[in-house]
Amino acid sequence: MTLVNAYIATSATEPLVRGTVERREVGPNDVLIDIEWAGICHSDIHTVRGDWGEIPYPMTVGHEIAGVVAAVGAEVTRHRVGDRVGVGCMVGSCRECEQCLAGNEQYCLKGMIGTYNAVDADGTITQGGYSEQIVVAEDFVLRVPESIPFEKAAPLLCAGITTYSPLRHWNAGPGKRVAVVGLGGLGHMAVKFAHAMGAEVTVLSQSLKKREDGLRMGADHYHATGDPDTFAALAGSFDLIVNTVSSGIDIGAHLDLLKTDGTLVNVGAPSEPLPVQVFSLLMGRKSFAGSAIGGIEETQEMLDFCAEHGIAPEVEVIPADRINEAWERVLASDVRYRFVIDAGTI
Amino acid sequence: MTLVNAYIATSATEPLVRGTVERREVGPNDVLIDIEWAGICHSDIHTVRGDWGEIPYPMTVGHEIAGVVAAVGAEVTRHRVGDRVGVGCMVGSCRECEQCLAGNEQYCLKGMIGTYNAVDADGTITQGGYSEQIVVAEDFVLRVPESIPFEKAAPLLCAGITTYSPLRHWNAGPGKRVAVVGLGGLGHMAVKFAHAMGAEVTVLSQSLKKREDGLRMGADHYHATGDPDTFAALAGSFDLIVNTVSSGIDIGAHLDLLKTDGTLVNVGAPSEPLPVQVFSLLMGRKSFAGSAIGGIEETQEMLDFCAEHGIAPEVEVIPADRINEAWERVLASDVRYRFVIDAGTI
Repeated sequence: MTLVNAYIATSATEPLVRGTVERREVGPNDVLIDIEWAGICHSDIHTVRGDWGEIPYPMTVGHEIAGVVAAVGAEVTRHRVGDRVGVGCMVGSCRECEQCLAGNEQYCLKGMIGTYNAVDADGTITQGGYSEQIVVAEDFVLRVPESIPFEKAAPLLCAGITTYSPLRHWNAGPGKRVAVVGLGGLGHMAVKFAHAMGAEVTVLSQSLKKREDGLRMGADHYHATGDPDTFAALAGSFDLIVNTVSSGIDIGAHLDLLKTDGTLVNVGAPSEPLPVQVFSLLMGRKSFAGSAIGGIEETQEMLDFCAEHGIAPEVEVIPADRINEAWERVLASDVRYRFVIDAGTI
Repeated sequence: MTLVNAYIATSATEPLVRGTVERREVGPNDVLIDIEWAGICHSDIHTVRGDWGEIPYPMTVGHEIAGVVAAVGAEVTRHRVGDRVGVGCMVGSCRECEQCLAGNEQYCLKGMIGTYNAVDADGTITQGGYSEQIVVAEDFVLRVPESIPFEKAAPLLCAGITTYSPLRHWNAGPGKRVAVVGLGGLGHMAVKFAHAMGAEVTVLSQSLKKREDGLRMGADHYHATGDPDTFAALAGSFDLIVNTVSSGIDIGAHLDLLKTDGTLVNVGAPSEPLPVQVFSLLMGRKSFAGSAIGGIEETQEMLDFCAEHGIAPEVEVIPADRINEAWERVLASDVRYRFVIDAGTI
């Protein structure tokens, strides 16, 4: 066991503080990673503040991790010391159930092991990426292609795969009209992916404030959901709507924007149930669906897709002593489009 | 224009009474049908009682119609005098939009024309099947195979196609586990179809009262949703759940019964929105969907499937002067499993 520096939550209400976190010894199938960059995800804040239930403190969050392999276990074959690698929202799963065998480790029937605040195979509570180093089983470590700027790799591991996976699953591509609700950390990646996949892309944002950004990222159209005319003008338009807004939206109004057989997929979950007018589903055989991150193989596919298409998130790099300030800005939606912590300053 | 005998609603609250309804002259593409049997659907009652909005009175309802062709227009090619035919929930659509051209007339982009309480192409309000005769455009008239008992053909035109279509769309078949919520007019058809398609079928009913019926109809398993153990025992079991209960059910509890990538499809719509816990959709990439009847070609396919597999609804035949009593029994869920009016007594 090793102690490494980390930024730590000591309660639901106090600012994060610099401290240490325990990392296990490198086992035969483990990889020790020197973390270079760690993205800030809204989930980190929800978790620490107890929005999704009580958690044990102290807690180190962070599940958008990019770094360099510092050591490998004797039986590791997939990674070598010096490799650029990444770790996302999962560090383990049963690897035996039908979902794991199908490459859907995120839907492991025994429950995937989250990168933080989860019970690990050895019974300890996992601790995340706001830290200097992490030890992860090699199968849950991704290769980061050289052409992806390193500080931009981190957000791909959560914001990237979370939007890439549903776009692939529901066949975004040429001839398809895709809408993205919300142009934040997830939404801006959804726009870039859907555009690169060949779909016609529309951003549905509360206002037109980020319109120029959206069009530059690849959106073909940009509409304000704050304008009631938007819903009348776009009725029956989309094959797929990816909703990246995790606070509640008017599901019925958005279902009405779908074509027959269209799908509205949520990639975030509000804590309160959303009221769904079933008639809106019936008339057009529509679906309201959810999607959670993606499997390991698909995450690697996403990273390779980013390298091939020159896709990367737009990030604001911060030193570790500005994490608390960054969290407040995330809560105020004041980030274009993802904060990434320079882990060398932790 | 011709006046024919019919059972008529004169207000939202009064019993139906015997009267007359106007039928248009038989146009070049029309078929005049002597109605022999008319099924009673819960929608008839909702419509008349104003549950779905105000309607114009007098109104003749009924959209499960079986009869014999009495006359055809000069250009009719699909039907001949003397043919056994049926009419379901639609008597028209634009026939030009992408949905009509794809055989999804029920999702016509200009709106399908319902068999009753809809504005017809000539501007009149359509009047349904609780009557002696009806005039319908030939393209919306189905062929009833000889081997289907005639009085049992009527409910296939709504209860049948409403359950057949989603089972086909979501690929019920060998290796698939399908649950049917509610064993009523729609549910009992869903069980028969899913069984004939080769799926493993489970009935989820409030109690075990109809268990023997359900197993006889082809269900492999039968569980009471009133028993809380049911939800724990069946968690993660089904590829598809067809919900035939149009009053609200606990959507979250039922979503938890789905496997990864499973779909819960509603074929009826409660008037109030249903609260959906989005987290239940995310964890397993599940979908909450809706489906409305089926297209004309698919309805013919369903009738032919029934003939091939010896499938028919279980019905209670009544004379027309018992319609009001039958409605009260439908409202009390006291019917096994569909009332069919002997239209010769109208």
